Amino acid sequence: MSDNRPIGILDSGLGGLTVAREIFRLMPHEKIIYLGDNARAPYGHRSEDVIRKFGLQCAKHLIDQDIKMLIVACNTITSVALEQIEECVRDLPSIGVVLPGARAAVLRTAEKKIGVIGTKATIRTGAYTKAIQSIGGDIRVFERESPLFVPLVEEGLLDRDVTRSAAQHYLYELLDLGVDCMILGCSHYSLLMEVIQGTVGTRIQLLDSALWTAKEAQDILTALKILSVSKGDGKAESRFLFTDKIDQMERKVSQFFGSQLTSAEYVIIGDM
Amino acid sequence: MSDNRPIGILDSGLGGLTVAREIFRLMPHEKIIYLGDNARAPYGHRSEDVIRKFGLQCAKHLIDQDIKMLIVACNTITSVALEQIEECVRDLPSIGVVLPGARAAVLRTAEKKIGVIGTKATIRTGAYTKAIQSIGGDIRVFERESPLFVPLVEEGLLDRDVTRSAAQHYLYELLDLGVDCMILGCSHYSLLMEVIQGTVGTRIQLLDSALWTAKEAQDILTALKILSVSKGDGKAESRFLFTDKIDQMERKVSQFFGSQLTSAEYVIIGDM
Repeated sequence: MSDNRPIGILDSGLGGLTVAREIFRLMPHEKIIYLGDNARAPYGHRSEDVIRKFGLQCAKHLIDQDIKMLIVACNTITSVALEQIEECVRDLPSIGVVLPGARAAVLRTAEKKIGVIGTKATIRTGAYTKAIQSIGGDIRVFERESPLFVPLVEEGLLDRDVTRSAAQHYLYELLDLGVDCMILGCSHYSLLMEVIQGTVGTRIQLLDSALWTAKEAQDILTALKILSVSKGDGKAESRFLFTDKIDQMERKVSQFFGSQLTSAEYVIIGDM
Repeated sequence: MSDNRPIGILDSGLGGLTVAREIFRLMPHEKIIYLGDNARAPYGHRSEDVIRKFGLQCAKHLIDQDIKMLIVACNTITSVALEQIEECVRDLPSIGVVLPGARAAVLRTAEKKIGVIGTKATIRTGAYTKAIQSIGGDIRVFERESPLFVPLVEEGLLDRDVTRSAAQHYLYELLDLGVDCMILGCSHYSLLMEVIQGTVGTRIQLLDSALWTAKEAQDILTALKILSVSKGDGKAESRFLFTDKIDQMERKVSQFFGSQLTSAEYVIIGDM
Protein backbone atom coordinates (compact mmCIF):
# COMPACT_ATOMS: atom_id res chain seq x y z
CA MET A 1 0.00 0.00 0.00
CA SER A 2 1.08 3.57 -0.54
CA ASP A 3 -0.36 7.04 -0.84
CA ASN A 4 1.20 9.73 -2.99
CA ARG A 5 -1.04 12.53 -1.73
CA PRO A 6 0.65 15.39 0.14
CA ILE A 7 1.04 15.83 3.90
CA GLY A 8 -0.71 18.98 5.15
CA ILE A 9 1.31 21.22 7.47
CA LEU A 10 -0.56 23.91 9.37
CA ASP A 11 1.13 26.92 10.95
CA SER A 12 0.31 30.40 12.15
CA GLY A 13 3.09 31.82 9.98
CA LEU A 14 6.53 30.77 8.83
CA GLY A 15 7.88 28.98 11.94
CA GLY A 16 6.33 25.66 10.90
CA LEU A 17 8.72 25.62 7.94
CA THR A 18 11.21 24.14 10.44
CA VAL A 19 8.94 21.06 10.60
CA ALA A 20 8.65 21.03 6.79
CA ARG A 21 12.44 21.13 6.52
CA GLU A 22 12.79 18.10 8.80
CA ILE A 23 10.09 16.24 6.85
CA PHE A 24 12.07 16.67 3.62
CA ARG A 25 15.31 15.63 5.35
CA LEU A 26 13.73 12.41 6.57
CA MET A 27 11.43 11.71 3.62
CA PRO A 28 12.69 13.51 0.49
CA HIS A 29 10.04 11.95 -1.75
CA GLU A 30 7.06 13.10 0.30
CA LYS A 31 5.36 16.27 -0.85
CA ILE A 32 3.53 18.70 1.40
CA ILE A 33 0.94 21.45 1.32
CA TYR A 34 1.96 24.09 3.81
CA LEU A 35 -0.46 26.73 5.07
CA GLY A 36 0.87 29.65 7.10
CA ASP A 37 -1.57 32.30 8.35
CA ASN A 38 1.01 35.08 8.42
CA ALA A 39 -1.61 37.81 7.83
CA ARG A 40 -2.76 37.20 11.41
CA ALA A 41 0.48 35.92 12.97
CA PRO A 42 1.76 35.72 15.61
CA TYR A 43 -1.00 33.87 17.47
CA GLY A 44 0.85 33.43 20.79
CA HIS A 45 -0.59 36.46 22.61
CA ARG A 46 -4.22 35.99 21.52
CA SER A 47 -7.10 34.54 23.53
CA GLU A 48 -7.89 30.84 23.27
CA ASP A 49 -11.19 31.63 21.53
CA VAL A 50 -9.46 33.55 18.75
CA ILE A 51 -6.61 31.03 18.37
CA ARG A 52 -9.18 28.22 18.11
CA LYS A 53 -11.21 30.16 15.55
CA PHE A 54 -8.22 31.09 13.36
CA GLY A 55 -6.68 27.61 13.73
CA LEU A 56 -9.88 25.82 12.75
CA GLN A 57 -10.42 28.09 9.74
CA CYS A 58 -6.93 27.24 8.49
CA ALA A 59 -7.24 23.52 9.31
CA LYS A 60 -10.46 23.29 7.31
CA HIS A 61 -8.81 24.96 4.35
CA LEU A 62 -5.99 22.39 4.43
CA ILE A 63 -8.29 19.39 4.93
CA ASP A 64 -10.13 20.43 1.76
CA GLN A 65 -6.88 20.02 -0.22
CA ASP A 66 -7.01 16.19 -0.23
CA ILE A 67 -4.10 15.49 2.08
CA LYS A 68 -3.18 12.12 3.60
CA MET A 69 -2.11 13.43 7.01
CA LEU A 70 -2.29 16.70 8.95
CA ILE A 71 0.61 18.03 11.02
CA VAL A 72 -0.14 20.99 13.25
CA ALA A 73 3.35 22.54 13.23
CA CYS A 74 2.55 25.46 15.53
CA ASN A 75 2.90 24.96 19.28
CA THR A 76 0.28 27.61 20.03
CA ILE A 77 -2.38 26.05 17.77
CA THR A 78 -1.50 22.56 19.02
CA SER A 79 -1.76 23.58 22.67
CA VAL A 80 -5.04 25.43 22.31
CA ALA A 81 -6.94 23.77 19.47
CA LEU A 82 -5.57 20.31 18.62
CA GLU A 83 -8.59 18.59 20.12
CA GLN A 84 -11.06 20.62 18.05
CA ILE A 85 -8.95 20.20 14.91
CA GLU A 86 -8.88 16.42 15.47
CA GLU A 87 -12.68 16.42 15.62
CA CYS A 88 -12.68 18.13 12.21
CA VAL A 89 -10.20 15.83 10.49
CA ARG A 90 -12.22 12.71 11.44
CA ASP A 91 -10.32 9.65 10.14
CA LEU A 92 -7.39 11.60 8.68
CA PRO A 93 -4.22 10.86 10.70
CA SER A 94 -3.13 14.00 12.54
CA ILE A 95 -0.48 15.05 15.05
CA GLY A 96 0.59 18.20 16.83
CA VAL A 97 4.07 19.30 17.93
CA VAL A 98 3.58 19.01 21.67
CA LEU A 99 3.47 15.26 22.29
CA PRO A 100 6.55 14.41 20.16
CA GLY A 101 8.64 17.03 21.99
CA ALA A 102 7.30 15.87 25.35
CA ARG A 103 8.15 12.23 24.59
CA ALA A 104 11.71 13.13 23.59
CA ALA A 105 12.21 15.09 26.81
CA VAL A 106 10.84 12.34 29.07
CA LEU A 107 13.32 9.89 27.55
CA ARG A 108 16.23 12.23 28.21
CA THR A 109 15.78 13.83 31.63
CA ALA A 110 17.95 12.24 34.32
CA GLU A 111 17.03 14.72 37.03
CA LYS A 112 13.31 14.26 36.24
CA LYS A 113 13.02 18.01 35.84
CA ILE A 114 12.04 19.40 32.46
CA GLY A 115 11.84 23.06 31.48
CA VAL A 116 9.53 24.32 28.75
CA ILE A 117 9.61 27.70 27.05
CA GLY A 118 6.90 28.90 24.68
CA THR A 119 4.42 31.62 23.81
CA LYS A 120 1.98 33.02 26.35
CA ALA A 121 -0.88 30.92 24.99
CA THR A 122 1.13 27.68 24.87
CA ILE A 123 2.36 28.06 28.44
CA ARG A 124 -1.03 29.19 29.75
CA THR A 125 -2.66 25.94 28.58
CA GLY A 126 -0.08 23.80 30.40
CA ALA A 127 -0.17 21.51 27.35
CA TYR A 128 3.44 20.33 27.79
CA THR A 129 2.94 19.54 31.48
CA LYS A 130 -0.19 17.54 30.66
CA ALA A 131 1.58 15.71 27.81
CA ILE A 132 4.62 14.86 29.95
CA GLN A 133 2.47 13.66 32.81
CA SER A 134 0.34 11.57 30.45
CA ILE A 135 3.51 9.80 29.31
CA GLY A 136 4.19 8.97 32.92
CA GLY A 137 7.00 8.90 35.42
CA ASP A 138 7.51 11.18 38.37
CA ILE A 139 8.65 14.24 36.45
CA ARG A 140 8.46 17.87 37.44
CA VAL A 141 7.78 20.36 34.67
CA PHE A 142 8.57 24.06 34.81
CA GLU A 143 6.99 26.17 32.09
CA ARG A 144 8.00 29.72 31.30
CA GLU A 145 6.58 32.06 28.67
CA SER A 146 9.19 33.88 26.61
CA PRO A 147 7.18 35.95 24.13
CA LEU A 148 10.00 38.26 23.00
CA PHE A 149 11.80 35.40 21.28
CA VAL A 150 9.31 35.39 18.37
CA PRO A 151 9.79 39.05 17.38
CA LEU A 152 13.56 38.72 17.91
CA VAL A 153 13.67 35.84 15.42
CA GLU A 154 11.31 37.65 13.06
CA GLU A 155 13.72 40.59 13.06
CA GLY A 156 16.62 38.29 12.32
CA LEU A 157 18.32 39.30 15.58
CA LEU A 158 19.67 35.82 16.26
CA ASP A 159 22.93 36.74 17.93
CA ARG A 160 22.83 40.25 19.34
CA ASP A 161 23.16 41.84 22.75
CA VAL A 162 19.42 42.42 22.92
CA THR A 163 18.79 38.74 22.20
CA ARG A 164 21.23 37.57 24.88
CA SER A 165 19.62 40.03 27.27
CA ALA A 166 16.17 38.57 26.54
CA ALA A 167 17.51 35.03 26.97
CA GLN A 168 18.92 35.90 30.38
CA HIS A 169 15.65 37.58 31.34
CA TYR A 170 13.66 34.44 30.56
CA LEU A 171 16.02 31.57 31.31
CA TYR A 172 17.99 32.26 34.48
CA GLU A 173 14.96 31.47 36.57
CA LEU A 174 14.54 28.04 34.93
CA LEU A 175 18.22 27.31 35.57
CA ASP A 176 17.77 27.93 39.28
CA LEU A 177 15.07 25.26 39.29
CA GLY A 178 17.57 22.58 38.29
CA VAL A 179 16.11 21.38 34.98
CA ASP A 180 18.40 19.24 32.80
CA CYS A 181 16.25 19.25 29.64
CA MET A 182 14.54 22.17 28.04
CA ILE A 183 11.87 21.91 25.36
CA LEU A 184 11.86 24.74 22.82
CA GLY A 185 8.07 24.90 22.71
CA CYS A 186 7.77 27.29 19.77
CA SER A 187 9.03 26.67 16.26
CA HIS A 188 10.78 30.06 16.21
CA TYR A 189 13.00 29.18 19.12
CA SER A 190 15.10 26.60 17.27
CA LEU A 191 16.73 29.53 15.49
CA LEU A 192 17.88 30.82 18.87
CA MET A 193 19.43 27.47 19.80
CA GLU A 194 22.94 28.94 20.03
CA VAL A 195 22.02 31.94 22.16
CA ILE A 196 19.85 29.78 24.41
CA GLN A 197 22.52 27.09 24.79
CA GLY A 198 25.08 29.82 25.49
CA THR A 199 22.83 31.22 28.21
CA VAL A 200 21.85 27.97 29.94
CA GLY A 201 25.18 26.18 29.47
CA THR A 202 25.96 22.81 27.91
CA ARG A 203 24.73 20.82 30.93
CA ILE A 204 21.17 21.41 29.76
CA GLN A 205 19.91 19.51 26.75
CA LEU A 206 17.72 21.53 24.38
CA LEU A 207 14.95 19.73 22.52
CA ASP A 208 13.53 21.09 19.31
CA SER A 209 9.97 19.83 18.75
CA ALA A 210 10.24 20.23 14.95
CA LEU A 211 12.68 17.34 14.61
CA TRP A 212 10.71 14.98 16.84
CA THR A 213 7.45 15.84 15.13
CA ALA A 214 8.89 14.99 11.72
CA LYS A 215 10.16 11.66 13.11
CA GLU A 216 6.74 10.88 14.55
CA ALA A 217 5.07 11.73 11.24
CA GLN A 218 7.43 9.27 9.53
CA ASP A 219 6.59 6.56 12.09
CA ILE A 220 2.86 7.06 11.54
CA LEU A 221 3.06 7.07 7.73
CA THR A 222 5.19 3.92 7.93
CA ALA A 223 2.84 2.16 10.35
CA LEU A 224 -0.19 3.05 8.22
CA LYS A 225 1.71 2.04 5.05
CA ILE A 226 0.89 5.33 3.39
CA LEU A 227 4.39 6.54 2.53
CA SER A 228 4.74 7.86 -1.00
CA VAL A 229 6.22 5.53 -3.62
CA SER A 230 7.06 8.45 -5.89
CA LYS A 231 10.77 8.90 -6.53
CA GLY A 232 10.30 12.59 -7.33
CA ASP A 233 11.68 15.60 -5.48
CA GLY A 234 9.03 16.12 -2.80
CA LYS A 235 10.17 19.64 -2.01
CA ALA A 236 9.91 20.76 -5.64
CA GLU A 237 6.41 19.29 -5.98
CA SER A 238 5.10 20.83 -2.75
CA ARG A 239 2.79 23.81 -2.41
CA PHE A 240 3.24 26.65 0.06
CA LEU A 241 0.19 28.76 0.88
CA PHE A 242 0.27 31.97 2.89
CA THR A 243 -2.26 34.62 3.81
CA ASP A 244 0.12 37.59 3.43
CA LYS A 245 3.16 38.44 1.37
CA ILE A 246 5.07 40.10 4.16
CA ASP A 247 8.15 42.26 4.04
CA GLN A 248 11.43 40.35 3.74
CA MET A 249 9.50 37.15 3.13
CA GLU A 250 12.45 35.55 1.31
CA ARG A 251 14.90 36.23 4.15
CA LYS A 252 12.48 34.83 6.71
CA VAL A 253 11.61 31.76 4.66
CA SER A 254 15.28 30.98 4.23
CA GLN A 255 15.84 31.41 7.97
CA PHE A 256 13.24 28.75 8.85
CA PHE A 257 13.40 26.54 5.80
CA GLY A 258 17.10 26.64 5.00
CA SER A 259 16.41 27.49 1.36
CA GLN A 260 13.93 29.36 -0.82
CA LEU A 261 10.53 27.98 -1.81
CA THR A 262 10.02 26.96 -5.42
CA SER A 263 6.77 28.93 -5.35
CA ALA A 264 4.36 30.55 -2.92
CA GLU A 265 0.62 31.06 -3.29
CA TYR A 266 -1.54 33.54 -1.45
CA VAL A 267 -4.96 32.62 -0.10
CA ILE A 268 -7.69 34.34 1.89
CA ILE A 269 -8.83 32.48 5.00
CA GLY A 270 -12.08 33.18 6.87
CA ASP A 271 -12.74 36.34 4.82
CA MET A 272 -10.22 37.99 7.20
CA MET B 1 -23.92 74.85 16.86
CA SER B 2 -22.83 71.70 18.63
CA ASP B 3 -22.77 67.96 18.17
CA ASN B 4 -23.06 65.52 21.04
CA ARG B 5 -22.26 62.44 18.96
CA PRO B 6 -19.10 60.54 19.84
CA ILE B 7 -15.67 60.82 18.23
CA GLY B 8 -14.58 57.55 16.61
CA ILE B 9 -11.05 56.37 17.40
CA LEU B 10 -9.60 53.60 15.26
CA ASP B 11 -6.62 51.50 16.30
CA SER B 12 -5.02 48.16 15.54
CA GLY B 13 -5.09 47.27 19.24
CA LEU B 14 -4.66 49.07 22.55
CA GLY B 15 -1.96 51.64 21.71
CA GLY B 16 -4.52 54.15 20.46
CA LEU B 17 -5.85 54.41 24.01
CA THR B 18 -2.99 56.92 24.50
CA VAL B 19 -4.84 59.20 22.04
CA ALA B 20 -8.14 58.54 23.83
CA ARG B 21 -6.53 59.49 27.15
CA GLU B 22 -5.32 62.80 25.72
CA ILE B 23 -8.77 63.49 24.21
CA PHE B 24 -10.37 63.15 27.66
CA ARG B 25 -7.67 65.32 29.25
CA LEU B 26 -8.34 68.12 26.77
CA MET B 27 -12.08 67.62 26.32
CA PRO B 28 -13.56 65.80 29.32
CA HIS B 29 -17.14 66.16 28.08
CA GLU B 30 -16.54 64.54 24.70
CA LYS B 31 -17.42 60.88 24.41
CA ILE B 32 -15.73 58.42 22.09
CA ILE B 33 -16.26 55.07 20.42
CA TYR B 34 -12.95 53.27 20.37
CA LEU B 35 -12.32 50.28 18.12
CA GLY B 36 -9.15 48.23 18.60
CA ASP B 37 -8.55 45.23 16.33
CA ASN B 38 -6.46 43.35 18.87
CA ALA B 39 -7.40 39.91 17.45
CA ARG B 40 -5.16 40.75 14.50
CA ALA B 41 -2.68 43.15 16.15
CA PRO B 42 0.06 44.11 15.74
CA TYR B 43 -0.24 45.37 12.16
CA GLY B 44 3.27 46.84 11.85
CA HIS B 45 4.96 43.87 10.17
CA ARG B 46 2.17 43.10 7.67
CA SER B 47 2.05 43.97 3.97
CA GLU B 48 0.39 47.19 2.85
CA ASP B 49 -2.42 45.22 1.18
CA VAL B 50 -3.34 43.46 4.41
CA ILE B 51 -3.00 46.58 6.58
CA ARG B 52 -5.26 48.47 4.14
CA LYS B 53 -7.81 45.65 4.14
CA PHE B 54 -7.91 45.28 7.93
CA GLY B 55 -7.85 49.06 8.46
CA LEU B 56 -10.73 49.68 6.05
CA GLN B 57 -12.83 46.88 7.56
CA CYS B 58 -12.44 48.51 10.98
CA ALA B 59 -12.96 52.06 9.71
CA LYS B 60 -16.24 51.03 8.05
CA HIS B 61 -17.43 49.45 11.29
CA LEU B 62 -16.72 52.70 13.16
CA ILE B 63 -18.27 54.95 10.51
CA ASP B 64 -21.50 52.93 10.84
CA GLN B 65 -21.68 53.94 14.53
CA ASP B 66 -22.86 57.52 13.83
CA ILE B 67 -19.72 59.38 14.87
CA LYS B 68 -18.99 63.07 14.28
CA MET B 69 -15.28 62.67 13.56
CA LEU B 70 -12.83 59.86 12.90
CA ILE B 71 -9.35 59.74 14.41
CA VAL B 72 -7.01 57.09 13.08
CA ALA B 73 -4.91 56.63 16.22
CA CYS B 74 -2.55 54.01 14.79
CA ASN B 75 0.59 55.18 13.00
CA THR B 76 0.71 52.05 10.84
CA ILE B 77 -2.89 52.40 9.61
CA THR B 78 -2.43 56.15 9.10
CA SER B 79 0.77 55.70 7.10
CA VAL B 80 -0.58 52.96 4.87
CA ALA B 81 -4.31 53.52 4.55
CA LEU B 82 -5.36 57.05 5.58
CA GLU B 83 -6.07 58.07 1.99
CA GLN B 84 -8.39 55.10 1.38
CA ILE B 85 -10.09 55.60 4.74
CA GLU B 86 -10.68 59.27 3.91
CA GLU B 87 -12.38 58.20 0.69
CA CYS B 88 -14.71 56.04 2.77
CA VAL B 89 -15.60 58.64 5.39
CA ARG B 90 -16.67 61.17 2.68
CA ASP B 91 -17.72 64.38 4.47
CA LEU B 92 -16.95 63.16 8.00
CA PRO B 93 -13.97 65.09 9.43
CA SER B 94 -11.03 62.74 9.85
CA ILE B 95 -7.37 62.90 10.89
CA GLY B 96 -4.49 60.52 11.33
CA VAL B 97 -1.59 60.65 13.78
CA VAL B 98 1.21 61.38 11.33
CA LEU B 99 0.58 64.98 10.31
CA PRO B 100 0.06 66.34 13.87
CA GLY B 101 3.34 64.76 15.03
CA ALA B 102 5.16 66.00 11.95
CA ARG B 103 3.88 69.56 12.46
CA ALA B 104 5.03 69.57 16.10
CA ALA B 105 8.50 68.38 15.11
CA VAL B 106 8.92 70.93 12.32
CA LEU B 107 8.15 73.71 14.80
CA ARG B 108 10.77 72.43 17.24
CA THR B 109 13.83 71.36 15.30
CA ALA B 110 16.65 73.92 15.41
CA GLU B 111 19.17 71.75 13.57
CA LYS B 112 16.60 70.97 10.84
CA LYS B 113 17.20 67.28 11.41
CA ILE B 114 14.32 65.15 12.64
CA GLY B 115 14.47 61.48 13.60
CA VAL B 116 11.44 59.20 13.33
CA ILE B 117 11.05 55.75 14.84
CA GLY B 118 8.13 53.46 14.07
CA THR B 119 6.98 50.05 12.91
CA LYS B 120 8.33 48.44 9.75
CA ALA B 121 5.21 49.38 7.77
CA THR B 122 5.15 53.00 8.98
CA ILE B 123 8.82 53.56 8.15
CA ARG B 124 8.60 51.73 4.82
CA THR B 125 5.92 54.16 3.58
CA GLY B 126 8.04 57.20 4.39
CA ALA B 127 4.82 58.85 5.59
CA TYR B 128 6.57 61.07 8.15
CA THR B 129 9.18 62.26 5.64
CA LYS B 130 6.42 63.13 3.17
CA ALA B 131 4.39 64.90 5.86
CA ILE B 132 7.38 66.93 7.11
CA GLN B 133 8.40 67.90 3.59
CA SER B 134 4.80 68.89 2.76
CA ILE B 135 4.88 71.29 5.72
CA GLY B 136 7.98 72.83 4.23
CA GLY B 137 11.37 74.12 5.20
CA ASP B 138 14.70 72.59 4.40
CA ILE B 139 14.52 69.70 6.86
CA ARG B 140 16.29 66.36 6.75
CA VAL B 141 14.37 63.38 8.10
CA PHE B 142 15.92 60.12 9.26
CA GLU B 143 13.51 57.26 9.72
CA ARG B 144 14.37 54.06 11.57
CA GLU B 145 12.16 51.03 12.17
CA SER B 146 12.24 49.72 15.72
CA PRO B 147 9.81 46.80 15.73
CA LEU B 148 10.88 45.23 19.03
CA PHE B 149 9.50 48.17 20.99
CA VAL B 150 5.89 47.01 20.48
CA PRO B 151 6.34 43.53 22.00
CA LEU B 152 8.51 45.00 24.80
CA VAL B 153 5.66 47.36 25.75
CA GLU B 154 3.07 44.61 25.34
CA GLU B 155 5.07 42.50 27.81
CA GLY B 156 5.20 45.40 30.26
CA LEU B 157 9.03 45.44 30.06
CA LEU B 158 9.23 49.22 30.27
CA ASP B 159 12.44 49.56 32.24
CA ARG B 160 14.58 46.44 31.94
CA ASP B 161 18.01 45.57 30.65
CA VAL B 162 16.52 43.97 27.57
CA THR B 163 14.57 47.17 26.83
CA ARG B 164 17.65 49.40 27.23
CA SER B 165 19.56 47.00 25.01
CA ALA B 166 16.88 47.27 22.31
CA ALA B 167 16.86 51.08 22.62
CA GLN B 168 20.63 51.20 22.10
CA HIS B 169 20.32 48.84 19.14
CA TYR B 170 17.84 51.11 17.40
CA LEU B 171 18.76 54.61 18.51
CA TYR B 172 22.54 55.03 18.56
CA GLU B 173 22.59 55.25 14.77
CA LEU B 174 20.04 58.10 14.77
CA LEU B 175 22.11 59.93 17.36
CA ASP B 176 25.15 59.81 15.12
CA LEU B 177 23.14 61.58 12.43
CA GLY B 178 22.73 64.67 14.60
CA VAL B 179 18.94 64.84 14.98
CA ASP B 180 17.62 67.17 17.70
CA CYS B 181 13.97 66.04 17.61
CA MET B 182 12.66 62.52 17.51
CA ILE B 183 9.07 61.60 16.70
CA LEU B 184 7.76 58.52 18.49
CA GLY B 185 5.90 57.27 15.45
CA CYS B 186 4.01 54.45 17.15
CA SER B 187 1.53 54.83 19.97
CA HIS B 188 3.27 52.12 21.98
CA TYR B 189 6.52 54.05 22.15
CA SER B 190 5.25 56.77 24.45
CA LEU B 191 5.39 54.19 27.22
CA LEU B 192 9.11 53.85 26.59
CA MET B 193 9.68 57.61 26.84
CA GLU B 194 11.97 57.27 29.87
CA VAL B 195 14.15 54.51 28.44
CA ILE B 196 14.36 56.29 25.09
CA GLN B 197 15.19 59.64 26.68
CA GLY B 198 17.78 57.91 28.87
CA THR B 199 19.36 56.39 25.77
CA VAL B 200 19.40 59.45 23.52
CA GLY B 201 20.09 62.04 26.24
CA THR B 202 18.19 65.17 27.16
CA ARG B 203 19.54 67.18 24.22
CA ILE B 204 17.03 65.43 22.00
CA GLN B 205 13.38 66.37 22.24
CA LEU B 206 10.95 63.48 22.02
CA LEU B 207 7.57 64.09 20.42
CA ASP B 208 4.62 61.88 21.18
CA SER B 209 2.09 61.96 18.33
CA ALA B 210 -0.83 61.07 20.65
CA LEU B 211 -0.76 64.43 22.39
CA TRP B 212 -0.54 66.47 19.18
CA THR B 213 -3.28 64.44 17.53
CA ALA B 214 -5.66 65.12 20.40
CA LYS B 215 -4.85 68.84 20.18
CA GLU B 216 -5.51 68.83 16.45
CA ALA B 217 -8.82 67.02 16.97
CA GLN B 218 -9.80 69.74 19.44
CA ASP B 219 -8.87 72.48 16.96
CA ILE B 220 -10.97 70.85 14.24
CA LEU B 221 -14.03 70.28 16.44
CA THR B 222 -13.74 73.90 17.60
CA ALA B 223 -13.37 75.28 14.07
CA LEU B 224 -16.32 73.23 12.82
CA LYS B 225 -18.33 74.22 15.92
CA ILE B 226 -19.16 70.61 16.67
CA LEU B 227 -17.85 70.35 20.23
CA SER B 228 -20.23 68.63 22.61
CA VAL B 229 -22.39 70.83 24.88
CA SER B 230 -23.00 67.95 27.26
CA LYS B 231 -21.64 68.48 30.77
CA GLY B 232 -21.46 64.75 31.39
CA ASP B 233 -18.42 62.58 32.03
CA GLY B 234 -17.33 61.77 28.49
CA LYS B 235 -15.13 58.90 29.57
CA ALA B 236 -17.93 57.18 31.47
CA GLU B 237 -20.31 57.52 28.52
CA SER B 238 -17.82 56.19 25.97
CA ARG B 239 -17.80 52.76 24.33
CA PHE B 240 -14.72 50.61 23.85
CA LEU B 241 -14.92 47.88 21.21
CA PHE B 242 -12.28 45.19 20.73
CA THR B 243 -11.97 42.10 18.56
CA ASP B 244 -10.28 39.92 21.21
CA LYS B 245 -10.31 39.66 24.98
CA ILE B 246 -6.59 39.08 25.33
CA ASP B 247 -4.60 37.89 28.30
CA GLN B 248 -3.82 40.59 30.90
CA MET B 249 -6.15 42.97 29.10
CA GLU B 250 -6.70 45.03 32.27
CA ARG B 251 -2.97 45.55 32.88
CA LYS B 252 -2.40 46.59 29.28
CA VAL B 253 -5.42 48.91 29.16
CA SER B 254 -4.21 50.62 32.31
CA GLN B 255 -0.74 50.99 30.83
CA PHE B 256 -2.01 52.89 27.78
CA PHE B 257 -5.11 54.55 29.18
CA GLY B 258 -3.96 55.37 32.71
CA SER B 259 -7.08 53.79 34.20
CA GLN B 260 -9.53 50.97 33.62
CA LEU B 261 -12.38 51.13 31.12
CA THR B 262 -15.90 51.38 32.46
CA SER B 263 -16.85 48.61 30.06
CA ALA B 264 -15.54 46.78 27.01
CA GLU B 265 -17.50 45.17 24.19
CA TYR B 266 -16.31 42.50 21.80
CA VAL B 267 -17.08 42.60 18.09
CA ILE B 268 -16.25 40.53 15.03
CA ILE B 269 -14.75 42.45 12.12
CA GLY B 270 -14.56 41.16 8.54
CA ASP B 271 -15.69 37.65 9.59
CA MET B 272 -12.02 37.23 10.69
